[in-house]
Amino acid sequence: MVKGKSSYRVAVVGATGAVGEEMIQVLEERKFPVEQLFPLASARSAGATVEFHQKPLLVEELTATSFQDIDIALFSAGSDVSKQFAPIAANAGAVVIDNSAAWRMDPSVPLVVPEVNAHDLDRHGGIIANPNCSTIQMVVALKPLHDKARIRRIVVTTFQSVSGTGKEAMDELLEGSRALLGFKEPQPKVYPYRIAFNCLPHIDEFLPSGYTKEEMKLANETRKILGDSAVKVTATTVRVPVFIGHSESINIETEHRLTANEARAILSTAPGVVVYDDPGHQIYPMPLDVVGKDEVYVGRIREDESIPNGLNLWVVADNLRKGAAVNAVQIAELLIR
Amino acid sequence: MVKGKSSYRVAVVGATGAVGEEMIQVLEERKFPVEQLFPLASARSAGATVEFHQKPLLVEELTATSFQDIDIALFSAGSDVSKQFAPIAANAGAVVIDNSAAWRMDPSVPLVVPEVNAHDLDRHGGIIANPNCSTIQMVVALKPLHDKARIRRIVVTTFQSVSGTGKEAMDELLEGSRALLGFKEPQPKVYPYRIAFNCLPHIDEFLPSGYTKEEMKLANETRKILGDSAVKVTATTVRVPVFIGHSESINIETEHRLTANEARAILSTAPGVVVYDDPGHQIYPMPLDVVGKDEVYVGRIREDESIPNGLNLWVVADNLRKGAAVNAVQIAELLIR
Repeated sequence: MVKGKSSYRVAVVGATGAVGEEMIQVLEERKFPVEQLFPLASARSAGATVEFHQKPLLVEELTATSFQDIDIALFSAGSDVSKQFAPIAANAGAVVIDNSAAWRMDPSVPLVVPEVNAHDLDRHGGIIANPNCSTIQMVVALKPLHDKARIRRIVVTTFQSVSGTGKEAMDELLEGSRALLGFKEPQPKVYPYRIAFNCLPHIDEFLPSGYTKEEMKLANETRKILGDSAVKVTATTVRVPVFIGHSESINIETEHRLTANEARAILSTAPGVVVYDDPGHQIYPMPLDVVGKDEVYVGRIREDESIPNGLNLWVVADNLRKGAAVNAVQIAELLIR
Repeated sequence: MVKGKSSYRVAVVGATGAVGEEMIQVLEERKFPVEQLFPLASARSAGATVEFHQKPLLVEELTATSFQDIDIALFSAGSDVSKQFAPIAANAGAVVIDNSAAWRMDPSVPLVVPEVNAHDLDRHGGIIANPNCSTIQMVVALKPLHDKARIRRIVVTTFQSVSGTGKEAMDELLEGSRALLGFKEPQPKVYPYRIAFNCLPHIDEFLPSGYTKEEMKLANETRKILGDSAVKVTATTVRVPVFIGHSESINIETEHRLTANEARAILSTAPGVVVYDDPGHQIYPMPLDVVGKDEVYVGRIREDESIPNGLNLWVVADNLRKGAAVNAVQIAELLIR
């Protein structure tokens, strides 16, 4: 139980990763009441230092005894680590907020986007899952429209940045771009093919159906977060040569008709959303706009005339912030409120 | 009338542009029977030279008298030039194959993709329109499926390379990438925002509906080429930091059910299509695969379980070749056959 204290002992597992670093920065920025921060990582990264409130902190190795006296543990070190250590942390009395896919579809684990389903936090058993980055920004944009007009079907295509894969992928885009500009062919290691000046229609593993796990996350997590198993979702997820910021082309079919103006009005007062939609003045969201921002940017809102009740939207957010670290810290804020 | 000769006098209007250069190269590669080639351009580019069959040719200024004794005129110099000069060329006796948007939706002008609607060439009046790059690759992939299962609705999102805009845009991506890798902010001129490491949901001009002209081309040209006004299309077109090769995420709803395997079998024998679809072995089309290729590559073929009769596809092609120059030269080949 983490409520009622004036400050909290917070562990960050995966503290040296792209999302882990962002989590520490967001805890600081949002003035989360941290009594003491415990940066944890694999043996390989232990001994490094991270900075928190202008003080260097030693990164310690994650072990089964890391969670004694921890109130809140933010995990972002991959599914294997979460599967093994989240239950250990929860058993030791910490509340885990897990950014991996390990626990998201477990019926006993709430999958939470604070603007959408904060109420699901009431029934947690020590582990709370942070949704996938591409799902978070989609549901923040769609929940207000779903409440008003009931979404029946979503067709989504994503343009996902390399920071969603991690720091090594950011280096690979950087070095690959440099190599190509120097007329050398880069040697990819993180991705199966070069990402620089290319598009990879392949995020996470392929399933026998031909879909990737990333595509199924968009379908299954969305239904769980919206609490509506009737919402149909089909997804195509694509990695693009962008460092930070995921973009999504979203087509929705609703039960009740919404005009573009009505959707714009609903979203303009929706929590966590910025409507950025004035194409006549070349106002539409782009990855370069959202880096460092906590809101989900929505633009290109248009009525889809190919069906009676349809809308197209273009939704962009910082995948490291709202898509990961900010959402996790927002959950922590709700827990201690 | 251009049939029945052993070789032809061919003009290329816009000979120094990205597509014009490609047209000249494709005429050479495909051994089009050229008696004499006349590279034409604006006064600004006149005096430059282009190479054809290892010989330099002087680029002359386009004027109202440029088309005397020309059999075939390939235009790729923008809509304004085509509006003004295509009728002049046609009146002088040339057959115009026009790569601009100027004449595409004119009911008296055939809009032709040879694999799809070669028969429409029978009724031309001196001007034939080459469709938009993003439309060509989509209809080549979809026509065989439409014939088999009747497509009712298409939801398409594009990932378009900068070469679709032209050479200056390719330079802008190159210089912009270089600047950012050197920690400088580039100053875009061709695009309203930087394209390097970014995505721009904005291709061609915005219309009052909120759609861009590019998006409406995908809808209107597709219906005209398929010869089926009942096909519904909704599109979102996006510029990505790729030099050459457009990718498209296409969702179709059909009247009759097609399994992914059936679609794969149909497409594997379809003209101009390469099925590149074995995700278990990481085989899926990407821009880097298609540069210099004349075929349309199709992969990620999956049944869309969100509707009874749905499929998702990922379609990639070289926008300068099949998307422009190759399609135009294929039309010329049909005309002289």
